Amino acid sequence: MRTVIFLPDLRSARLSFHGTVGLVPTMGYLHEGHLSLIRRAREENEHVVVSIFVNPTQFGPKEDLSRYPRDLERDLRLIEPYTDLIWNPSAKIMYPPGYQTWVEVEAMTRPLEGAMRPGHFRGVTTVVAKLFNSVQPHKAYFGQKDAQQAAVIRQMVRDLNFPIEIVVCPIVREPDGLAMSSRNVYLDSEQRNAATVLYRSLSAAKEAYESGERDAEKIRGKMKEVLAAEPLAEVQYVSCADYDTLDELEEIKGKTLLSMAVFIGKTRLIDNFVLG
Amino acid sequence: MRTVIFLPDLRSARLSFHGTVGLVPTMGYLHEGHLSLIRRAREENEHVVVSIFVNPTQFGPKEDLSRYPRDLERDLRLIEPYTDLIWNPSAKIMYPPGYQTWVEVEAMTRPLEGAMRPGHFRGVTTVVAKLFNSVQPHKAYFGQKDAQQAAVIRQMVRDLNFPIEIVVCPIVREPDGLAMSSRNVYLDSEQRNAATVLYRSLSAAKEAYESGERDAEKIRGKMKEVLAAEPLAEVQYVSCADYDTLDELEEIKGKTLLSMAVFIGKTRLIDNFVLG
Repeated sequence: MRTVIFLPDLRSARLSFHGTVGLVPTMGYLHEGHLSLIRRAREENEHVVVSIFVNPTQFGPKEDLSRYPRDLERDLRLIEPYTDLIWNPSAKIMYPPGYQTWVEVEAMTRPLEGAMRPGHFRGVTTVVAKLFNSVQPHKAYFGQKDAQQAAVIRQMVRDLNFPIEIVVCPIVREPDGLAMSSRNVYLDSEQRNAATVLYRSLSAAKEAYESGERDAEKIRGKMKEVLAAEPLAEVQYVSCADYDTLDELEEIKGKTLLSMAVFIGKTRLIDNFVLG
Repeated sequence: MRTVIFLPDLRSARLSFHGTVGLVPTMGYLHEGHLSLIRRAREENEHVVVSIFVNPTQFGPKEDLSRYPRDLERDLRLIEPYTDLIWNPSAKIMYPPGYQTWVEVEAMTRPLEGAMRPGHFRGVTTVVAKLFNSVQPHKAYFGQKDAQQAAVIRQMVRDLNFPIEIVVCPIVREPDGLAMSSRNVYLDSEQRNAATVLYRSLSAAKEAYESGERDAEKIRGKMKEVLAAEPLAEVQYVSCADYDTLDELEEIKGKTLLSMAVFIGKTRLIDNFVLG
């Protein structure tokens, strides 16, 4: 396993790979969710590249960029068994003075996370385009945890003709249902208990769906009801949307994304289920 | 030489190339300017791909998209000796229903052509990013005729880490100095004579520069003076700017771009000289 920082070093390492290359883009502080992506990439490719870069352009001015958790040494130890090459550039390498180019996906980035975090997806799609051009992978791996991000990346790849297959892997959860997230480390023990409310809320909605409920407003109501019972939870949004377009639904017909963003204290958590 | 229309056919043709690939993106109706790019690509690469696509997203609503000149048969005959593969997609292939992704270069697209043609460069950078991802060339060839376009593409390639070398080739001119352009076909014979005023204006400015003039405003004045003497010419802009940033200059120091856009009748012509 080799770690590179500068783009020319990445390019020359990349040139030494002759088989298929899988890329797993991360912001570091890796957990079982990331490792599931990296293991999948290992199974499906001859070479595995992991990028570790806390991308400043996808954080809003009031978000947690400066306190975002970091532990590079631990990350390297965790992924060592599965990874050929790590790219760990600095913000100055990715966005040098005079930087001025942005990749933007439009309609699909407007609702949900996009509505709550203006500019977030512009930062995501720009950095992912840069990672794709730098690493030139055959496949790239993203987690279903960031459901809208996965949909937006798929749209970008289709629209801009990137010759890359996007693989979206299932959410990895703690035994009590909490979705793995680097931000879970912000939670104290009381908040950690309360944080299971996202999973409980989604499970209740799924149960209603499986009992035949197809009224999307009632499904959203079910999720809100469970969230409202948790005093530490402050709901930002709750959604029952078309899986492909992310348009909010009135009636559930095809593949559907249930998703939510909830503050537990100052920590913003997201989670989702796919129905159908 | 093979012509393909659909992206999967392009991809499989591309996979059959094992050496270096040069791409020449064009909007067709080819002239000696384009041919100079294609010949240069032929000299420098094992395989040459030419795209022919009149890109609707770089035309403004009041511009000449529908009447832009086209002659595919003639184009194919002209480039046959130099070209391995032609990609000639339709607008629907490039921008299918639901299309929503844009690549945008900011500061450098604001002055000059960008100021006169809002959205033009967003269309250019988006389609060029798509061409780059589709063809995956080692080198791509652009004409100095579209000086700002060449600067913007270079910036995009640098910013988004495209693994592609941009080669900018000199303007090819008619014997009387008029820069070759597909739009020259719009000119009637009186207008065709008047159109040499762009070259004469730039030459006068260059002469002043070579006589030691370094005051950019005086250089712009010299260009305007020559243009004003031509009754058929209506000036849109005249610029004396830094070659790299395209910032308008007060004093000429390093490499400098003299450029202009001038209407001759309803036909909009651009031309430029590089000083220093």
